[in-house]
Amino acid sequence: MNSDLCRQLGIEFPLFAFSHCRDVVAAVSRAGGMGVFGAVMTPPDKLREELDWIDAHCDGRPYGVDLIVPTSIQKQKGPAPTPEQLLSALPETHTGFADSVLQRHGVSTDGLDDSRLDMMHFSDNMNEAGAEEVLDIVFSYPIKLIANALGTPPPIMMERARATGVPVAALVGSKKHAALQVEAGVDILVAAGGEAGGHCGEVSTIVLVPEVVSVAKGTPVLAAGGIVNGAQMAAGMAMGAAGAWCGSVWLTTAEGEPPQQIKEKMLEATSSDTIRARSRTGKNSRQLKSAWTEAWENEGPNPLPMPHQSLVSEPALRKVEKLAQSGHEGAEKLSTYWVGQGVGLMNQATSATAVVQQFKEDYLEAIERLNATLEE
Amino acid sequence: MNSDLCRQLGIEFPLFAFSHCRDVVAAVSRAGGMGVFGAVMTPPDKLREELDWIDAHCDGRPYGVDLIVPTSIQKQKGPAPTPEQLLSALPETHTGFADSVLQRHGVSTDGLDDSRLDMMHFSDNMNEAGAEEVLDIVFSYPIKLIANALGTPPPIMMERARATGVPVAALVGSKKHAALQVEAGVDILVAAGGEAGGHCGEVSTIVLVPEVVSVAKGTPVLAAGGIVNGAQMAAGMAMGAAGAWCGSVWLTTAEGEPPQQIKEKMLEATSSDTIRARSRTGKNSRQLKSAWTEAWENEGPNPLPMPHQSLVSEPALRKVEKLAQSGHEGAEKLSTYWVGQGVGLMNQATSATAVVQQFKEDYLEAIERLNATLEE
Repeated sequence: MNSDLCRQLGIEFPLFAFSHCRDVVAAVSRAGGMGVFGAVMTPPDKLREELDWIDAHCDGRPYGVDLIVPTSIQKQKGPAPTPEQLLSALPETHTGFADSVLQRHGVSTDGLDDSRLDMMHFSDNMNEAGAEEVLDIVFSYPIKLIANALGTPPPIMMERARATGVPVAALVGSKKHAALQVEAGVDILVAAGGEAGGHCGEVSTIVLVPEVVSVAKGTPVLAAGGIVNGAQMAAGMAMGAAGAWCGSVWLTTAEGEPPQQIKEKMLEATSSDTIRARSRTGKNSRQLKSAWTEAWENEGPNPLPMPHQSLVSEPALRKVEKLAQSGHEGAEKLSTYWVGQGVGLMNQATSATAVVQQFKEDYLEAIERLNATLEE
Repeated sequence: MNSDLCRQLGIEFPLFAFSHCRDVVAAVSRAGGMGVFGAVMTPPDKLREELDWIDAHCDGRPYGVDLIVPTSIQKQKGPAPTPEQLLSALPETHTGFADSVLQRHGVSTDGLDDSRLDMMHFSDNMNEAGAEEVLDIVFSYPIKLIANALGTPPPIMMERARATGVPVAALVGSKKHAALQVEAGVDILVAAGGEAGGHCGEVSTIVLVPEVVSVAKGTPVLAAGGIVNGAQMAAGMAMGAAGAWCGSVWLTTAEGEPPQQIKEKMLEATSSDTIRARSRTGKNSRQLKSAWTEAWENEGPNPLPMPHQSLVSEPALRKVEKLAQSGHEGAEKLSTYWVGQGVGLMNQATSATAVVQQFKEDYLEAIERLNATLEE
């Protein structure tokens, strides 16, 4: 494609695949797009293993990594709270409510506190030493893009990126945040609409993209949120985006990491079957509606701030996920997964490579459709 | 434009302007688009006056009318409830809360119940005689489109439209409703995303448009929700829409009906300054955030079903609107207006004619932008 961004990154087609699944990352990069490995929640050893694999399977094509390194990291010089301190700070109203929802669906609550202690890797890169370790690992690979999923990239990320010539991308959910990111010097803005899966703002893609473009001062903008096909990608680019950033569409591919039971839920879901709620992490995130999300929405206590709410919900939902795979009826009702409204358009199981190919065809067809309106 | 829909309707450019303002309707039709007069809440005498004016000012170009005639009208053979019956059915919790919000902003509550009685025209076309009167009037003009804003058009509307050869458009907020409308035989689907002003669903435009196109069976689809410029219109058409249906963008034009104080609020508003809430009519509608919407959202009782909630809110908001125009500080904070997230892109006062012209230019530029990506 004739595109400055494609030339800059060495890719053929400006389709960015955000995925926690290394197979998707490599498949998309090999197919001419840019796979971006979502490394949040990946402990250091595992991160090395995944990046080794990706590097070996991209056939030399560019790939990137997505992290969460909070902006405020520099202010937090002291030691991070210990897992035990975090655990004891969780109010009984919240852990008790989570327990009650599990119990009424026949899911045992044994061992939840232990898994809370186990899963606190997330908090590790919230302090400076943790973040540096992760950045050391990531920058030891020939990555071609680093993305920060939350807030302005902190100086320790920007400095390393500059030193190695790696472009920095940042996700934004509002025009105001886009302007701040441009000021901070990011190289690519990902304008993620409220229809996106996972953490998201409230402004929709069709409004956010032109808003972000209007303050980007020439910084390339990727359209994100709800985009699962090439016609929607063309839509984003008609509004001035330089490409599309997609997360949800890979989930139902053969390579996608969700368990089969979740993939089936997604293939059946309509676009009305997702909910944007704070009950999973403390910040608004979009996910499949389920008995779990309905319970929190209708009867649950007000969610705790990040990262405490995750410590309440994640261990419970991991248990649910495991049980649902073995056909446990209550767990099947409770099981949920981060996905955007585009899930309503994801109706066929396919492969990541085939998704990229279909994107290219739909993109061309969309442009032909528009050109036809101008024929005499 | 080379478009079946344009040929069918006798228009040059498939931009549909929904407006309660006759000047906007006529200006857009004269400029080559299709003005559609929003006649909901317009009493019969006033409706004749408005349509006389529009017919005289369109220079023979096509225009349309938008109504709410509920699907269930045929079942409701008995007499409609009297205004007094409706009024006495309003719970004190709700009228009392409305009163308290006004009072703490220094707005007197005198005469609210009287205006509740006065404003019950809305319920008039909820019964068969009322609906027939409105349809008699509307079909006595050479309209080229009739739209139904809520639910499947009832047989009495479809029959008259068929008899006179007037195409019927219907607004839909979900794929499921689109399929029902196609089955009911409507001629044009307006896929209105959750970012739209006024009543709206929760699925966003970039997801809803391709979903609706996928079940339209060839029925033309108009993209609606958040669209205030020609690049967004091209985005909708890249996804298979045959044109765009816009309401918000006309509000800040010189012709637009909102009072100056509201126009200024809109020109300053960002896309994050709207809220989708049930507190105005009982169904979810999107409007400017204000002290009024915040109060209902944070402390108000659960809204009543339609049309009762409107009887609580409308008289209060009309009072607020009047006072706000005279510079009353409390009323300025309370004042709100239905508008979509596209308000964030509406930053310049202009005329309706200029908006159409700008749409055409932006539409062409968007297609050029896409074609440039395919150059060798």
